[in-house]
Amino acid sequence: MKFLFINGVNLNMTGEREKSVYGSDTLEEINAEITNYFKDDVCEFFQSNIEGEICAAVQRADAEKYDGVIINAGAYSHYSIAIRDAISSVKTPVIEVHMSNIFARDEFRRTSVISAVCKGVVCGFGKKSYILAAESFKL
Amino acid sequence: MKFLFINGVNLNMTGEREKSVYGSDTLEEINAEITNYFKDDVCEFFQSNIEGEICAAVQRADAEKYDGVIINAGAYSHYSIAIRDAISSVKTPVIEVHMSNIFARDEFRRTSVISAVCKGVVCGFGKKSYILAAESFKL
Amino acid sequence: MKFLFINGVNLNMTGEREKSVYGSDTLEEINAEITNYFKDDVCEFFQSNIEGEICAAVQRADAEKYDGVIINAGAYSHYSIAIRDAISSVKTPVIEVHMSNIFARDEFRRTSVISAVCKGVVCGFGKKSYILAAESFKL
Amino acid sequence: MKFLFINGVNLNMTGEREKSVYGSDTLEEINAEITNYFKDDVCEFFQSNIEGEICAAVQRADAEKYDGVIINAGAYSHYSIAIRDAISSVKTPVIEVHMSNIFARDEFRRTSVISAVCKGVVCGFGKKSYILAAESFKL
Amino acid sequence: MKFLFINGVNLNMTGEREKSVYGSDTLEEINAEITNYFKDDVCEFFQSNIEGEICAAVQRADAEKYDGVIINAGAYSHYSIAIRDAISSVKTPVIEVHMSNIFARDEFRRTSVISAVCKGVVCGFGKKSYILAAESFKL
Amino acid sequence: MKFLFINGVNLNMTGEREKSVYGSDTLEEINAEITNYFKDDVCEFFQSNIEGEICAAVQRADAEKYDGVIINAGAYSHYSIAIRDAISSVKTPVIEVHMSNIFARDEFRRTSVISAVCKGVVCGFGKKSYILAAESFKL
Amino acid sequence: MKFLFINGVNLNMTGEREKSVYGSDTLEEINAEITNYFKDDVCEFFQSNIEGEICAAVQRADAEKYDGVIINAGAYSHYSIAIRDAISSVKTPVIEVHMSNIFARDEFRRTSVISAVCKGVVCGFGKKSYILAAESFKL
Amino acid sequence: MKFLFINGVNLNMTGEREKSVYGSDTLEEINAEITNYFKDDVCEFFQSNIEGEICAAVQRADAEKYDGVIINAGAYSHYSIAIRDAISSVKTPVIEVHMSNIFARDEFRRTSVISAVCKGVVCGFGKKSYILAAESFKL
Amino acid sequence: MKFLFINGVNLNMTGEREKSVYGSDTLEEINAEITNYFKDDVCEFFQSNIEGEICAAVQRADAEKYDGVIINAGAYSHYSIAIRDAISSVKTPVIEVHMSNIFARDEFRRTSVISAVCKGVVCGFGKKSYILAAESFKL
Amino acid sequence: MKFLFINGVNLNMTGEREKSVYGSDTLEEINAEITNYFKDDVCEFFQSNIEGEICAAVQRADAEKYDGVIINAGAYSHYSIAIRDAISSVKTPVIEVHMSNIFARDEFRRTSVISAVCKGVVCGFGKKSYILAAESFKL
Amino acid sequence: MKFLFINGVNLNMTGEREKSVYGSDTLEEINAEITNYFKDDVCEFFQSNIEGEICAAVQRADAEKYDGVIINAGAYSHYSIAIRDAISSVKTPVIEVHMSNIFARDEFRRTSVISAVCKGVVCGFGKKSYILAAESFKL
Amino acid sequence: MKFLFINGVNLNMTGEREKSVYGSDTLEEINAEITNYFKDDVCEFFQSNIEGEICAAVQRADAEKYDGVIINAGAYSHYSIAIRDAISSVKTPVIEVHMSNIFARDEFRRTSVISAVCKGVVCGFGKKSYILAAESFKL
Repeated sequence: MKFLFINGVNLNMTGEREKSVYGSDTLEEINAEITNYFKDDVCEFFQSNIEGEICAAVQRADAEKYDGVIINAGAYSHYSIAIRDAISSVKTPVIEVHMSNIFARDEFRRTSVISAVCKGVVCGFGKKSYILAAESFKL
Repeated sequence: MKFLFINGVNLNMTGEREKSVYGSDTLEEINAEITNYFKDDVCEFFQSNIEGEICAAVQRADAEKYDGVIINAGAYSHYSIAIRDAISSVKTPVIEVHMSNIFARDEFRRTSVISAVCKGVVCGFGKKSYILAAESFKL
Repeated sequence: MKFLFINGVNLNMTGEREKSVYGSDTLEEINAEITNYFKDDVCEFFQSNIEGEICAAVQRADAEKYDGVIINAGAYSHYSIAIRDAISSVKTPVIEVHMSNIFARDEFRRTSVISAVCKGVVCGFGKKSYILAAESFKL
Repeated sequence: MKFLFINGVNLNMTGEREKSVYGSDTLEEINAEITNYFKDDVCEFFQSNIEGEICAAVQRADAEKYDGVIINAGAYSHYSIAIRDAISSVKTPVIEVHMSNIFARDEFRRTSVISAVCKGVVCGFGKKSYILAAESFKL
Repeated sequence: MKFLFINGVNLNMTGEREKSVYGSDTLEEINAEITNYFKDDVCEFFQSNIEGEICAAVQRADAEKYDGVIINAGAYSHYSIAIRDAISSVKTPVIEVHMSNIFARDEFRRTSVISAVCKGVVCGFGKKSYILAAESFKL
Repeated sequence: MKFLFINGVNLNMTGEREKSVYGSDTLEEINAEITNYFKDDVCEFFQSNIEGEICAAVQRADAEKYDGVIINAGAYSHYSIAIRDAISSVKTPVIEVHMSNIFARDEFRRTSVISAVCKGVVCGFGKKSYILAAESFKL
Repeated sequence: MKFLFINGVNLNMTGEREKSVYGSDTLEEINAEITNYFKDDVCEFFQSNIEGEICAAVQRADAEKYDGVIINAGAYSHYSIAIRDAISSVKTPVIEVHMSNIFARDEFRRTSVISAVCKGVVCGFGKKSYILAAESFKL
Repeated sequence: MKFLFINGVNLNMTGEREKSVYGSDTLEEINAEITNYFKDDVCEFFQSNIEGEICAAVQRADAEKYDGVIINAGAYSHYSIAIRDAISSVKTPVIEVHMSNIFARDEFRRTSVISAVCKGVVCGFGKKSYILAAESFKL
Repeated sequence: MKFLFINGVNLNMTGEREKSVYGSDTLEEINAEITNYFKDDVCEFFQSNIEGEICAAVQRADAEKYDGVIINAGAYSHYSIAIRDAISSVKTPVIEVHMSNIFARDEFRRTSVISAVCKGVVCGFGKKSYILAAESFKL
Repeated sequence: MKFLFINGVNLNMTGEREKSVYGSDTLEEINAEITNYFKDDVCEFFQSNIEGEICAAVQRADAEKYDGVIINAGAYSHYSIAIRDAISSVKTPVIEVHMSNIFARDEFRRTSVISAVCKGVVCGFGKKSYILAAESFKL
Repeated sequence: MKFLFINGVNLNMTGEREKSVYGSDTLEEINAEITNYFKDDVCEFFQSNIEGEICAAVQRADAEKYDGVIINAGAYSHYSIAIRDAISSVKTPVIEVHMSNIFARDEFRRTSVISAVCKGVVCGFGKKSYILAAESFKL
Repeated sequence: MKFLFINGVNLNMTGEREKSVYGSDTLEEINAEITNYFKDDVCEFFQSNIEGEICAAVQRADAEKYDGVIINAGAYSHYSIAIRDAISSVKTPVIEVHMSNIFARDEFRRTSVISAVCKGVVCGFGKKSYILAAESFKL
């Protein structure tokens, strides 16, 4: 299988920023761990701080023939209708993930505008959230 | 490992009710599939339509020494502060699951009052939601 | 025809509680009057103060082959998504009734979360609300 | 007994407009059916698209010595405090009816500003709503 | 001076409807009293239950050269943006009056959508509200 | 082609009322200009201050075989569910127009309850709004 | 007759502050004009910037045997439940006045928490508001 | 005197759950302390996790001739209109208590739907809240 | 022990104002009764209608070495963040009391902005509320 | 005349995404059609998924001497105050367009934060919306 | 230059109250530091717990010929429309300051009703907030 | 000391856009003035219209060893949780500035989502806001 893992804004800071919330692994280390876990599958990774580039990455999902997209849009999850529409524009199933349990945090983090157009949501498992989300395609 | 899977109100109707949303497997069939998947672990199951009985089941989690509780509280997810408090009263980690993607349904189904006190949330993967949630303890 | 009349929480107090609102007939007297009115039909009655038991009663409607269910869920009408889901889970048509005109009472009583999944609503006619609701199946 | 059936705005389109919601009988056919059902009573009918004329019709209820008024105010139900006040200004009991179950429709249709001053509410039974409402005076 | 007193919906019922709120004088008696009080001025009266006719009456104010318009729009006060716009469309000063103190009544009666475009508001003095409003032009 | 242009409440005051917002042409002059612009088409005009008459005009659209209805409901746009329902009751496409940009005005003018059932919306172009709306049928 | 005119916070600045709203007469000049208008009556005046002192002034109304109290509480009108309770604690009728039309100003000025416990409200007539309010006791 | 102390959902966990909030005494120890304090009175105790059973316990208050009922409904305090109605259905005075100060906790805990139908409220004194509430009947 | 009982705005009217709500004892009589009840303790009393003076009284609590402060802030309870902050600024425990059950009154009286910073709340017991609150320090 | 047509986020997917809503023409085909329609005018086109680039394109409007800008900001319409401010910063008139009737879609799509600063709005006419908007400059 | 520094309610407790928020300097020490910093200017200080006295201090600003007023209204900032109006009534520029960052605190502290009528706002710099505010007049 | 001044979206238009609000100096001129004012410090400047680039600039603050960051995020201040999170991810203190007094402008401009994670806020002083903010590090 072929997966695309998209990480949004500020996730390039993972491992440096608020370690009590996000853990101390860097994004590169997390990606390496995912690659290792799904060693029989193709895992591709994309990170951007720019909302429009994340939209573009999602838009390419059908053309690139991914079996699934796993997206952690970071702060954009809470207001980017643009990313929501990008997800709606493709047929490839998209899973929303968060490392922290967003429902146990600030009020404004408890709503994600992209959940409604994703296939499912996995949150609260730290870096394992990515693996569980991809695993859903393999069960 | 030892898991408790709690299913709340109306989930005894699974496989008969709104099949397009919940699939056509009965709860017994789903439970059997879970047992089979985690064949090296102890999987216990509890279902009740009664809010107070669900609270009681959660309350016993520490004493019964479960490694994890996986709960699909059904409609109670949306208003049962009682179940929320039961979850807060135990140290055993509790994972919230839903078979459907609750964020893609009626407005009042998009809020779960128990999410904030659970370790994580998995929703939208049909019967696979239960397996992914338990899998989180094994990674 | 075969009808099931379900009365929810505190309706066992009818005839004793707030008589100016609910009249002075007890629930047993009201049920007797209904049985007498529909003497050529089968009228069955169920009352419970427990939300989950009311759900269970509704869930059995298809299996028990009722032509219609008439439900006065009492206070649960205003917040029990559980009962709402139980009604959605059966094909038997369900009619919501209230003895008082709930729209002329406290703000929080003016909303019923089960109305949307019932076939129709009859309220404000005291004990006659039950008879009119059942009558709807006979016209 | 003597009844006045008031139909409000757009109900002159019944049978032509949104048939899946309102059925294919015209208002005239429905009125004829009501007249036939209550053949020992006096049934009078009034329809207007104009809010103020509906108020005036209600205002005459006491003077005309109706035993009951059955009103389907159509869209005006949702905002006409004017009709509400007209109902409050008479002693004749007024029953609110709707052919569709307004609680299962658009959010803004779930509130009726006239319910609180009516004796009762009957909705969701198609053309039978009118008959059940009038029947309430005969039980 | 030349005044126009406009009474809106249901005010033709004054003296018959809710006497504890509005008193037992009919609208004709009130108008006679006003005429008598301002016997050196021209007092004209208009009443309609129809929102559009009230708008039309207001629209004529400049052309008819009234010194002031005194309007009790009744229930329309609470939602008729149409009457609001009619008032905005004329240069003649318009005073809003209510016989009852609308701020001491139902929540929905505490807001008048026409107040903002009137010169002033007088309410709570029964039939004297009309006289005080007109008196404001003579001080 | 055959068009019906409906103008609602207070639009008979166009050219006299708030000229900085609506311009100084009267409704008759605007209508003449429209007739002239679409000289190969049939342009009919209807204006009323009365909500129920506007509903009736819309209701006749199918029977009168208009290709399109262009409606500026004035203040009724913001609360007339009655007109909304009238539009829903016909198959003829209806376009909503406003001369001013309603989104740049008072908060309560930024919502139109009829937009959702119209084919499209054109606003902010003064008298040209009517022409653009009708033009949409000719492209 | 014996009247008490209470002026609240910042009204000592009248004639100096925002003259386009409140006019250029000082409070002393306005009071003199009132005294002159009601020359056969006893007119007493009280002004304070301190909420608690205004409450105390209102509390004395019964003991001091005023026929009526006319109060312009200034900014306190919008939030002082303390003054509201003081008004409720006396039997002397109290009239609320404002020089400006508060309904045509900032959103937060459109609500007065004291209106509901006053006998009536007069606003928008500049200094004439005080005279009209007192006049209401003499009609 | 004869008192009934009702403890609702999760209060059977007292002494084990969130000790920093609720203290380390178990419910049995608290009850013993109450019995000891009111040694000349009859103190009865009831605990249930089930909303409907709590309703039933309250319903029996008149028949059992209690002088007072002291209720800590736990999480149900925040949404159980059912318990509210049960309290309304009896004449025995009911006092609401909470061990913690609910107003200093989560937003959703600051509203109790049963307060309005209780005689009084005592909260924030730990286990002493029960004693103070009962003491109110003895002063 | 040494207690300070603070009474806020309009409580000097107790015994004269709304006797059905507050009883017919004057504040002096209530204070005397408290002094008598706690005859082995020092009871001091302070009343003011002025918000800032109430703040100042609270501020002195630590310096004056009170064991507890019992405060009935009257109407200020509902909006005085100033008094809230004064309470936060002292270490002496403060108990909020109300004679009436504020949760059974007007909507705006159901929220107290000072509850969250008090140790506990006692309301609904008339003059006994003060005694129960102080009693809490002696148990 | 010289026009700039700006298309925002995801509009590069037009013709591939949700064809039932947006039609099956690609953006290039639509642009070609526009160019052809206004063959005597200069039509320039800009599309970007990046909010800041859209702002920059708008900012250049005055310097580039366009007669008008026609903007379909896509999802950004619903929250980009940045684009709103860019529009406010230029003198060139800007028209907002949408291919779909945004008022007939999800609740969150019914509000555009840029409408208030545009000259006018055209929506619901599919690709014809662009042409009508530009046509407004030519009438 | 001549400055007036106004400190509102509870700020006399600075240095004693919540030191982690406000620091351990007393108000007198802070004022001395300000005087020292602006040693070539006239710095005057006023503190009161009474809202009306703060209004009076502000009202005198023009007459006393201050170049600027620096105000920290404490808790009154969040609801005192009275102080807001006092600020509006003078021409002297007024700067709002807070020692803490009010936007990082309780929800109700994030809104200041006086900001809109001040020239500017400085908050979050502890005692330095006062100096920066005054410095703004000297740049 | 070493400062980074970040200017967000549309601030490149300063001096050209809405001069009555922002003044007529260009951003370059303002930056030059700042450099001149802090001539003994290192002042660096960054401007971007792209939200993600602003996030990236903030993210680099620790690595670049700035003593402070001064940010005017422009319109992004009102909704960019992304920039908020970027600020949270660094230890360097960040000050929020606005040239205009955002609290005196449109409702939607009165809330900044980044204030809560900044050290302090300075607004309303035009270009001087930047200088005051940086000055706070030097006092």
